[in-house]
Amino acid sequence: MARVGKAFLTSLKSNVNLGCCYYHYHFHRHSITYSFLRHLNLPESRAIARYVARKYESSGPDLLREGNLRESAMVDLWLEVESQQYNPAISSIVNQYLIIPIHGGVPDQKLIDANVEKLGMVLDVYEDHLSKTKFFAGDFFSLADLDHLPYTQYLMATPYASLFESRPHVKAWWEELSSRPAARKTTAAMPKSG
Amino acid sequence: MARVGKAFLTSLKSNVNLGCCYYHYHFHRHSITYSFLRHLNLPESRAIARYVARKYESSGPDLLREGNLRESAMVDLWLEVESQQYNPAISSIVNQYLIIPIHGGVPDQKLIDANVEKLGMVLDVYEDHLSKTKFFAGDFFSLADLDHLPYTQYLMATPYASLFESRPHVKAWWEELSSRPAARKTTAAMPKSG
Repeated sequence: MARVGKAFLTSLKSNVNLGCCYYHYHFHRHSITYSFLRHLNLPESRAIARYVARKYESSGPDLLREGNLRESAMVDLWLEVESQQYNPAISSIVNQYLIIPIHGGVPDQKLIDANVEKLGMVLDVYEDHLSKTKFFAGDFFSLADLDHLPYTQYLMATPYASLFESRPHVKAWWEELSSRPAARKTTAAMPKSG
Repeated sequence: MARVGKAFLTSLKSNVNLGCCYYHYHFHRHSITYSFLRHLNLPESRAIARYVARKYESSGPDLLREGNLRESAMVDLWLEVESQQYNPAISSIVNQYLIIPIHGGVPDQKLIDANVEKLGMVLDVYEDHLSKTKFFAGDFFSLADLDHLPYTQYLMATPYASLFESRPHVKAWWEELSSRPAARKTTAAMPKSG
């Protein structure tokens, strides 16, 4: 079995998307346990998400579409966009605005402003894209939508939620995603700021 | 079909792993064309890689192991590690040392040094891991190995290749990967620096 070293796990602590792990745990808490994930030794939240989606493909929604070449390519594409474009900007805003003050620090407003600008650029692309298709990978719900949930939920507790208000298709997509019963259960259980 | 906007594609130009795209194109040049990828509109190299691996799963090596829950989870885990830990450090070194001078710029040695330190920490974990298992996801070759190829190949043209020399298991893994016939064809066709 693959194992990662202690030093690496320590370094991962500062990077791992804890909100996302928390979310995946709660989203599937009736059928998956942390102990099993520990046994598998999967510290990366996106790898956990793929694993859970694959494991429950037949009993829940097919979130990866691995049986369809074109659809799975679109899921993978938008998962990459979330990981490489959306997440760096939104996680920086959330960390600065919500997390650092919890630990007694002072947010770096310049860093927030720079990332609000970056996130706005990504959301402009999202707005254009979601005007043509209901969800990211097509007219079907997928992991590419779901992986946006944790940090977006936290962003909604900041003044930068306005980035969504000014983009009607992104706003409609978020309302659809966040109103799903499992998403409501999950976000209700997420730690609150303040 | 999913489409991404022009502005986004423009912004992606600075981020996309061109070496990786180049590699995937050449690696599979007998069976896939850029025009098809354009038709699919897949600008993210890792999504392209997954698509190609899935398409040729039955005729080539099974690089994703999607038919096996545990093995696919390990592939996904180490793909994430490459994407989130290895790539940011190595791409920064390669860009500073090889790419910026091509465009008449002066490398930022402090940035290189900081990323050499980060890459060294990742490689320490790799060294420990690869002392226990032949490839990243287990004793089988996978996309998690392959996605390391393009930037590592470029790093080998810099003085920082020494990072591999001092880590015997990482060095042996690289020699195994880079000596595969398709890898040799691919790297022979990659643009040379200097």
